Amino acid sequence: MTSRDKHNSMANAIRFLSIDAVEKANSGHPGLPMGAADIATVLFTRYLSFDPKNPNWPDRDRFVLSAGHGSMLLYSLLYLTGYEDIDISDIENFRQMGSPTAGHPEYGHAAGIETTTGPLGQGLANAVGMAIAERKLEAEFGSDLQDHYTYALVGDGCLMEGISQEAISLAGHLKLNKLIVLWDDNGISIDGAISISDSTDQIKRFAASGWHTLAVDGHDPEAIGRAIEEAQKSERPTFIACKTTIGYGSPNKAGSSKAHGSPLGADEIALTRTQLGWSDEPFVVPSEILDAWRLAGLRSNKERKAWEDRLAGKDAEIRSTFERRFRGELAGAFEPAIEAYKKKLVADKPKVATRKASEMVLEVINGALPETLGGSADLTGSNNTKTSQTQPITPDDFSGRYLHYGIREHGMASAMNGIALHGGLIPYGGTFLVFSDYSRPAIRLAALMGIRVIHVLTHDSIGLGEDGPTHQPVEHVAALRAIPNFQMFRPADAVETAECWQLALESENKPSGLALTRQNLPTVRNDHVEDNLCSFGAYDLAPASDADVTIFASGSEVEIALEAKARLDGMGHATRVVSVPCFELFEEQTEEYRSAIIGRSKVKVAVEAGIRQGWDAFIGSDGIFIGMNGFGASGPYQELYKHFGITADAIVAAAEARLHGDQ
Amino acid sequence: MTSRDKHNSMANAIRFLSIDAVEKANSGHPGLPMGAADIATVLFTRYLSFDPKNPNWPDRDRFVLSAGHGSMLLYSLLYLTGYEDIDISDIENFRQMGSPTAGHPEYGHAAGIETTTGPLGQGLANAVGMAIAERKLEAEFGSDLQDHYTYALVGDGCLMEGISQEAISLAGHLKLNKLIVLWDDNGISIDGAISISDSTDQIKRFAASGWHTLAVDGHDPEAIGRAIEEAQKSERPTFIACKTTIGYGSPNKAGSSKAHGSPLGADEIALTRTQLGWSDEPFVVPSEILDAWRLAGLRSNKERKAWEDRLAGKDAEIRSTFERRFRGELAGAFEPAIEAYKKKLVADKPKVATRKASEMVLEVINGALPETLGGSADLTGSNNTKTSQTQPITPDDFSGRYLHYGIREHGMASAMNGIALHGGLIPYGGTFLVFSDYSRPAIRLAALMGIRVIHVLTHDSIGLGEDGPTHQPVEHVAALRAIPNFQMFRPADAVETAECWQLALESENKPSGLALTRQNLPTVRNDHVEDNLCSFGAYDLAPASDADVTIFASGSEVEIALEAKARLDGMGHATRVVSVPCFELFEEQTEEYRSAIIGRSKVKVAVEAGIRQGWDAFIGSDGIFIGMNGFGASGPYQELYKHFGITADAIVAAAEARLHGDQ
Repeated sequence: MTSRDKHNSMANAIRFLSIDAVEKANSGHPGLPMGAADIATVLFTRYLSFDPKNPNWPDRDRFVLSAGHGSMLLYSLLYLTGYEDIDISDIENFRQMGSPTAGHPEYGHAAGIETTTGPLGQGLANAVGMAIAERKLEAEFGSDLQDHYTYALVGDGCLMEGISQEAISLAGHLKLNKLIVLWDDNGISIDGAISISDSTDQIKRFAASGWHTLAVDGHDPEAIGRAIEEAQKSERPTFIACKTTIGYGSPNKAGSSKAHGSPLGADEIALTRTQLGWSDEPFVVPSEILDAWRLAGLRSNKERKAWEDRLAGKDAEIRSTFERRFRGELAGAFEPAIEAYKKKLVADKPKVATRKASEMVLEVINGALPETLGGSADLTGSNNTKTSQTQPITPDDFSGRYLHYGIREHGMASAMNGIALHGGLIPYGGTFLVFSDYSRPAIRLAALMGIRVIHVLTHDSIGLGEDGPTHQPVEHVAALRAIPNFQMFRPADAVETAECWQLALESENKPSGLALTRQNLPTVRNDHVEDNLCSFGAYDLAPASDADVTIFASGSEVEIALEAKARLDGMGHATRVVSVPCFELFEEQTEEYRSAIIGRSKVKVAVEAGIRQGWDAFIGSDGIFIGMNGFGASGPYQELYKHFGITADAIVAAAEARLHGDQ
Repeated sequence: MTSRDKHNSMANAIRFLSIDAVEKANSGHPGLPMGAADIATVLFTRYLSFDPKNPNWPDRDRFVLSAGHGSMLLYSLLYLTGYEDIDISDIENFRQMGSPTAGHPEYGHAAGIETTTGPLGQGLANAVGMAIAERKLEAEFGSDLQDHYTYALVGDGCLMEGISQEAISLAGHLKLNKLIVLWDDNGISIDGAISISDSTDQIKRFAASGWHTLAVDGHDPEAIGRAIEEAQKSERPTFIACKTTIGYGSPNKAGSSKAHGSPLGADEIALTRTQLGWSDEPFVVPSEILDAWRLAGLRSNKERKAWEDRLAGKDAEIRSTFERRFRGELAGAFEPAIEAYKKKLVADKPKVATRKASEMVLEVINGALPETLGGSADLTGSNNTKTSQTQPITPDDFSGRYLHYGIREHGMASAMNGIALHGGLIPYGGTFLVFSDYSRPAIRLAALMGIRVIHVLTHDSIGLGEDGPTHQPVEHVAALRAIPNFQMFRPADAVETAECWQLALESENKPSGLALTRQNLPTVRNDHVEDNLCSFGAYDLAPASDADVTIFASGSEVEIALEAKARLDGMGHATRVVSVPCFELFEEQTEEYRSAIIGRSKVKVAVEAGIRQGWDAFIGSDGIFIGMNGFGASGPYQELYKHFGITADAIVAAAEARLHGDQ
């Protein structure tokens, strides 16, 4: 068998596993795996450093299938190269309940799936994050321990999504030379030829952002190999345009959108078997081809062992730090530092905006945790995300710990996902809360994957004032609380801000967001307690026995709730204030705890400078809600609070009216 | 006074109105108006066709300040050129409650504000939509009635946001030759020099997407003028890079981020007055300069009158159609057509997916309303957005009524905003509901502006099946309901789909979204009634007197609710089913109606294949919710419904348990 014949057989193994799995599932996308099989075969058999038996080897090359609908390409590769999580029955159970081989690749379903993809463009931006992490860790631990490539296979859809521009311009700026993007340039999308909706010269576009660019025939293994070798030597990230035929090998569907997203059908499959000379039954890979693939899976074994020897030879402290960070454990210094700091806060009672409180606690966090990597989408001074420890990373110096992500909220959020997925670092990044809308698709994927990324979301209500309704979040806290597995925090003061940061950092399997104010707030927590009270999601901040009125509030409105309580108490209406920094954590508490917190007051009030949605869980549908029911306005914030009736007066008046009505 | 001196004085009027307004408000962004004053002066005094006394003249040029933080540039221009909505007291009241001069330009606050901007990149994409509308209407009504330019002034931030790539690649593809984008290339963002976060060659980037590109000194009026003239003649959209100095004229802050987003301060303002030779008091524009500006405001008067003569000379039917469409009124043919169609549906009882039902009613709508402009973000066959009337628009032929927007959900949504803002057309566009996350910032702005755009959001739950959790919306219906002034519909069958489409079209001042299924659903509406029942937001679909159980459901779960009702009825538990196609409309009903619909059943159940958030308003916090509380999974949809317990069995069991518990 010539080398080319061998290549073809190995690529055809991918093609037929994909064709047959899609056919059996009666749904899925055969076109991409068929078209990109040659690229993937070259990459996995000759260049990618990976070890299926040690799939989490920290210095492995990363491979991201950004065009996630082509999931069968990845599943085929994982099965063929010998990953234990995917066997042939999993391929046969493609897209079935409980199978690791979901419709789109899902992180955590099987080793070798480096990230969840499907929503287009995300994988590319994740890969940028992974390449950032690699450069950063190389700068920190040396190329002995971190020196790998990140490859992403992207489709036309990835490149049409706006997030791709944020990703490629950031990567080009940072000169991420070990990032190699392979474009499956098949000229086809769901609606037909790409030419019906796009005329972009992608090579020129990437070049305009400082990328090294190459173009090859995506079915010529030697040309693909030469391009990858050239890319590996580049001082800039490399974009390789690989001209391919979607559905390669299908006599009647190749090169057309008919091959993209549905089974080929039995007749066409038979014709494709003939055309490509593949005579085996569905899900059968001839043993010499499977053996060749399994050998490819062993290729990097030596390299991995050499890396382990190098790690073993390192100073014990460096080794243990490196290993700890890749396990995702926080440094031992963290807990005492944060506990001491919280005690100090309760004593000092600072009156600061929670964005400032966040900066203050970050100073402690960044001092104790070398693994944090900060940043902001061009709002550093407003988000208060930079501390004394975090010097900026520059294209030529990755020793810093701060990224100027630029005005790229979406790219930032998705790159943060990639950084967290890579391992060894805990990314946090800031923007205005209102612009979480821009990064929402990436936030959702972080929640779906269960990874630790932390979003610093300042200017969290009409309290930002004059910038007006375009910048005033109203529905955003509710909308972020809606995302499953996402911890949305809205702390009320500096103490709660520290507690919420602690919870976010300690939540290894959840992303978090912190909604923080622009305006100053008093410290409302008077006593230091051992427990992290925010960990309960909601807690009795100002208790009262047999309270007539319970006021539930979050963030900046806790101060207002306390003022109302003082006045209602003074009027003889015993009033309790419950601080609610995190709905998600409250829902995780015992039924008993939740009942006790919700209580049995005659009057229940919720106060938040946002919409009501979600608060009925505390106050019932007949409770009183003091907040927003539409967009904000431009003006000084104190006037806005009055205008929209979010005041102690309003709480007192509403509670009184209800108390009297009840009598 | 030389022409250059006159230009300088006129530009300085913008600068000092902006400087002084920001100073008085003690917040705002002086840097952009100071830097871009020369560009704006050239454009408004020599090229822009506009008539401040007839600001809504349909064939005026459109001007979009995409860098909305520079709002004082626009307010200054509107005041200086004589728009009646902005007088000098409004300039003095910049950023104050109730003033039209909000922190960022808000559509509807004053004539001449063509769109709401501030969230970066949106204005650019709006402008693309406006230019699409112009080309489309020119094709339809002739260049006698539509032949104008669309100008957008964009900043670095606009160009870093991903949405800009979607906008420019779409514009380049469509060869929108009357779109002229002026880039305020000042090299500065909030965090400092652009060079700390970006190295993109913007000229090359735009060229890669087929734009005509030019670069000029943004402080040289003649160079700016020549570039605009060249742009006007181009066969492609033109990008003019205008090199400017942010905060131009400020001796100590010009060219630095210090000029960007805060008042210059009294001392620096005095120095700037000296440097630019401006001796007048704050808010005083010398009369000869104001006169010169007012004359500029009269420049297009003749042109506007000639246009009116041309319109008057048109065939009466064309004229009335044109005028009707710019008033935003629906064609008279619409109502009878939709009423007849709804009657037919009730008789035919089709069993189709609501996405298919949407296509069916669109066939009627597009037949009756020539103003609809359809499209999809590359999911035409899945969104069912194309009908027999809607041939695709191509770069060389805008006579069609359908846009292949490409894989650009965000760009599509924002372009749709621009199309609606332009007037004369009603845009609708499709994508998967889960990808509404990508377009969310544009959806929010449509709601804030109160404009009629319609989002067709198919594959609206786990009911899409095998594509899995990356594609299965769970929180999206709740998250879209959270946006104020946005009508989120989730119809249960073909009849409700027709009703919801009707409501969306008749809502001139609200954007709408329709969540539609992939899977087939039976027709649940048996009788034709004159009222549009969906207009109540929630209504008694299957009433029962003295019901023990009320089941509230939306969309595909109404069928399940009806099945549960039949079984509970059979067990002797009188059960009522309320269909809830639109929360927003329900909230607008009278207290009496709402109480009657919510009713007093012992057991209240809500069923929706999404999260609980928001449903407590119907069932109370102690009601039974049957739905999702986390992400979905990949598998056949019937299995998923069973797996997640969204079944009639589950409803019956939960209701029974509660009924027995109550006894």
